[in-house]
Amino acid sequence: MSARTAPVSRIAIVGVGQVGGAVAYALILGSVASELLLVDVKADLRDCQVRDLSDVVYSHNSSTRVRSATYDEAGQCDIVVVTAGSKYSPGETSMQHMYRNIGILRNAVTGMKPFSPSTILIVVANPVDLLSSLALELSGLPPSQVIGSGTFLDSVRLRGLVADKIGIAPSSIDLYVLGMHGERQVAAWSTATVDGFSIDKAVPAESLNRNALADECKHKSQSIFRVKGATPYGIGAVVLSLCSSILLDKHEVRPVSHFQPEFGCFFSLPVILGRGGIISTIALPLAVDERAKIADSAEVLRDTLARIRENQ
Amino acid sequence: MSARTAPVSRIAIVGVGQVGGAVAYALILGSVASELLLVDVKADLRDCQVRDLSDVVYSHNSSTRVRSATYDEAGQCDIVVVTAGSKYSPGETSMQHMYRNIGILRNAVTGMKPFSPSTILIVVANPVDLLSSLALELSGLPPSQVIGSGTFLDSVRLRGLVADKIGIAPSSIDLYVLGMHGERQVAAWSTATVDGFSIDKAVPAESLNRNALADECKHKSQSIFRVKGATPYGIGAVVLSLCSSILLDKHEVRPVSHFQPEFGCFFSLPVILGRGGIISTIALPLAVDERAKIADSAEVLRDTLARIRENQ
Amino acid sequence: MSARTAPVSRIAIVGVGQVGGAVAYALILGSVASELLLVDVKADLRDCQVRDLSDVVYSHNSSTRVRSATYDEAGQCDIVVVTAGSKYSPGETSMQHMYRNIGILRNAVTGMKPFSPSTILIVVANPVDLLSSLALELSGLPPSQVIGSGTFLDSVRLRGLVADKIGIAPSSIDLYVLGMHGERQVAAWSTATVDGFSIDKAVPAESLNRNALADECKHKSQSIFRVKGATPYGIGAVVLSLCSSILLDKHEVRPVSHFQPEFGCFFSLPVILGRGGIISTIALPLAVDERAKIADSAEVLRDTLARIRENQ
Amino acid sequence: MSARTAPVSRIAIVGVGQVGGAVAYALILGSVASELLLVDVKADLRDCQVRDLSDVVYSHNSSTRVRSATYDEAGQCDIVVVTAGSKYSPGETSMQHMYRNIGILRNAVTGMKPFSPSTILIVVANPVDLLSSLALELSGLPPSQVIGSGTFLDSVRLRGLVADKIGIAPSSIDLYVLGMHGERQVAAWSTATVDGFSIDKAVPAESLNRNALADECKHKSQSIFRVKGATPYGIGAVVLSLCSSILLDKHEVRPVSHFQPEFGCFFSLPVILGRGGIISTIALPLAVDERAKIADSAEVLRDTLARIRENQ
Repeated sequence: MSARTAPVSRIAIVGVGQVGGAVAYALILGSVASELLLVDVKADLRDCQVRDLSDVVYSHNSSTRVRSATYDEAGQCDIVVVTAGSKYSPGETSMQHMYRNIGILRNAVTGMKPFSPSTILIVVANPVDLLSSLALELSGLPPSQVIGSGTFLDSVRLRGLVADKIGIAPSSIDLYVLGMHGERQVAAWSTATVDGFSIDKAVPAESLNRNALADECKHKSQSIFRVKGATPYGIGAVVLSLCSSILLDKHEVRPVSHFQPEFGCFFSLPVILGRGGIISTIALPLAVDERAKIADSAEVLRDTLARIRENQ
Repeated sequence: MSARTAPVSRIAIVGVGQVGGAVAYALILGSVASELLLVDVKADLRDCQVRDLSDVVYSHNSSTRVRSATYDEAGQCDIVVVTAGSKYSPGETSMQHMYRNIGILRNAVTGMKPFSPSTILIVVANPVDLLSSLALELSGLPPSQVIGSGTFLDSVRLRGLVADKIGIAPSSIDLYVLGMHGERQVAAWSTATVDGFSIDKAVPAESLNRNALADECKHKSQSIFRVKGATPYGIGAVVLSLCSSILLDKHEVRPVSHFQPEFGCFFSLPVILGRGGIISTIALPLAVDERAKIADSAEVLRDTLARIRENQ
Repeated sequence: MSARTAPVSRIAIVGVGQVGGAVAYALILGSVASELLLVDVKADLRDCQVRDLSDVVYSHNSSTRVRSATYDEAGQCDIVVVTAGSKYSPGETSMQHMYRNIGILRNAVTGMKPFSPSTILIVVANPVDLLSSLALELSGLPPSQVIGSGTFLDSVRLRGLVADKIGIAPSSIDLYVLGMHGERQVAAWSTATVDGFSIDKAVPAESLNRNALADECKHKSQSIFRVKGATPYGIGAVVLSLCSSILLDKHEVRPVSHFQPEFGCFFSLPVILGRGGIISTIALPLAVDERAKIADSAEVLRDTLARIRENQ
Repeated sequence: MSARTAPVSRIAIVGVGQVGGAVAYALILGSVASELLLVDVKADLRDCQVRDLSDVVYSHNSSTRVRSATYDEAGQCDIVVVTAGSKYSPGETSMQHMYRNIGILRNAVTGMKPFSPSTILIVVANPVDLLSSLALELSGLPPSQVIGSGTFLDSVRLRGLVADKIGIAPSSIDLYVLGMHGERQVAAWSTATVDGFSIDKAVPAESLNRNALADECKHKSQSIFRVKGATPYGIGAVVLSLCSSILLDKHEVRPVSHFQPEFGCFFSLPVILGRGGIISTIALPLAVDERAKIADSAEVLRDTLARIRENQ
């Protein structure tokens, strides 16, 4: 038997509630990585997810193995997906939610240190831009290796809503939701194209109520949260896509949250993703008002970050 | 534009909680059917699942569309998966659970009647052999078109446990758990083979503690239920496999619950699945004691069914 | 067993030499249709391809069955791919090649008549725009159901060449080669975008030698033809994509050859493809010179068509 | 950007005529490896295949890159598939074919030395058992890392023929063709099972003419060779399956040609394949006459090998 063997790819999921579980389920069905490591402070939940998910491996003849793991082991994986804290607790204010999630993130990232020098960290928990900003500082990883899911799901949604309206595949529509994920996110209609030509020319302006669509998109998560307390399937599919882009070195353009040097914090703009994480950024020719709105929201985040740092 | 077009395949899922949701998620990621119809008495849950799952369609560029639907529409689909009642309520006795689920099943099946003559009905809710037996009577469909998930997941699990022990792919192991799903299920070791040769010859008897493995398999669901209240991923993967076998007419051998004429009730034995449902049954050469145990448990189910019919 | 069953999708391939074989191989590996019917005037080649391809079905556990068939049966399929004549014979002039292929196409289309009203006809043989134009007349099918592979492969190639140059996934680049497939094809740089923003802004003009890339793209087929006499793999992948778009009703935008009412002949412009064939056309805002070049080449094709009709 | 990145898997194909091309095409459509290296003494054919196959990468958005390479580079890949010499030349005797292919193999293996210590070598050219035996000696690799495609395709075929006869999926049938690939191959009916139970019990003996089926299987390649001069699609699918088993560490049981210590040469028996090549062999309980026939043919091969070694 040979001593050295062909390469193994590993993804760790930190936090395996509804969202982490849905991410793991999709990764196994897609046979994306060789090994999937589940990490959670709730050991019984973690082991229970491993048991449930191992049945998917068996029945689907997936080439992905799944097992329980420690923070230490997670820090040595090719990709770490942090979903911990992605669920809202009933009655929790968003401020309480934020401080709870900051604590969870800090414990998780600290527990995984020191990271393998090539680990890519994907933050899924909310508020995603703030937590990703902190994750970069805490992890000691270079900015190209820390990513927040940001407005990728929002972009997918808005493309889907437009696609349904005009009867074209979502994959043929290039349209980004950018900036800060949440209330202040910006639908970048100015750069929207349908298979390469401006949406203004492709679709009569009056046939698409842009404000209504952008609003529906912005509040879709909440409408799902209200009933289920999480949006596991949408997030699961989006993280599946991010992990494939990275592990398979696809060089696809994706709107994800990443470090913006001129603002000192994270928000979403399109980047090219590959095996090293962010391969390069893209200078999108946004309209002046779109750009201003994003800058304003970055200001707010920077202030919040400053306050958090003071409070420590 | 042509009036007639290429064919459309439709799967309905009745009951879209954790289990139904996981089934839908897997079907969309696998692009198995053209259309997925979600049905649930809780309209807000149903619509919320459609919203969450539509993001999977958009982001994955899946060719499966998902939408809310009525019982009437479900009854016209190629396949109907009934998961309603698959979750245990805390503190519920299994008798209460059974009567609650009988009521749910009756409403669902009655609401879908009259079925399209070619619909295949897959019952996933528990107690699955009892509910499948009732579903056959209530639906008016022929026995070849009513299937219970039965011991398929148990078989997948036991193969997986053996595979991990002996270091061979689960797909290379033919080993069935048969009879009544649950406490009385029978691991048919007498017919077990590893890629075509008897497991007795492939693996030293002392290296596999068969009773311990069968027990671990039998109680795996409970160990997951205790923590999560459902085994959504395992069931989701198994139903994905059943729907593929049927829609793609694969003629694969699968251990599913189906009508046993000589016993007057449902339990699991291997059948060949294809576009018409059960294409044919297989006379497995079981050991005498395995056969006896299955007959005993069928006796119990027949009595229960008789009692339920009297109580109506 | 039920009388009616879930739907079956059928693709026929007419002409199963290197190109037809490569198309069939890809369709089976992708499990795109339920049945694949191979048709060829050379019965021994046809049966030999069925034998070779059936091993792919067996080993891959594909849900696509493959069998020999007649023209009559092909005419009843959901999609008919005509590759007959796609190979150049050594020493043949392009005029001889054209007249030979016109004869082959006429026999094939006449042999399949009357078509099922919903059949989609995809012409792959060259000169593809001319043969597609004739196929429409001969078949009696509506214009939305007759497609030529046209410049789809050219577009794929040019995107690939640009993608390699700038380090972005080909799927992120929207760039079309349009008009007449062959020497007169037009690379529509004016509408090129990279994930939604103009290629002019995304990439410094000097880093992409557009003329050189368009030239390399235009002559790629010839450079492969010279060595192998066919470009089977590229065409196979492109036809796989077209068949998926149609059968799975994907509504993707694709540059394919189709009937242009104002010119009375076929050439390639982007359309939306779905289950009915061409769902709608797209008014691409081409530059004036691009538009003029396409019109000129259409003029030439119209003249050729007129001459062919006179000669009959 | 990180210095170290996630792992890359590489497959080299040595000899890229019809068979090597079909292998490459399937590997790209399946996105099995990160990189595919094509090697051929005919540089124009090799480069032409790269050009044709790169269009498959572009159009299918495959994560497999394809490029021309040298023998040196091939020797550093995770898997090397040697198809060189797999095609019969018209009028060639099998003795001439054998000596020509021995020369080709020797040049290829010598050219690749020294191999990476973890390379798995898969020999596809014929006579496959003889060439694999020589490849082991020439390569210096351990026996667990040198494999011949052997009777895997024959086994796939016989399963397919039986499956078609009895209406069950090929994947549900465990039946091996073993020993020497070619005229002396042995259909091991004694161990045949249908999803775990003996084929004798599953199918009435009179319904399967075993000799006729084994004969049809044995001569299938010839019947395809006579028309096309190669069986590219069947071999392509089988090598795709072998490469997946190895790279994804699937531990599947496969009948491939490998070194038999007690005979001093290669022939096919089932083994478990994984990342290190042959993980373990399986002691199949063959009938006495099946075992004797295999031993006889091994005798013949051993004699041939001795003669070849003398002639050097």
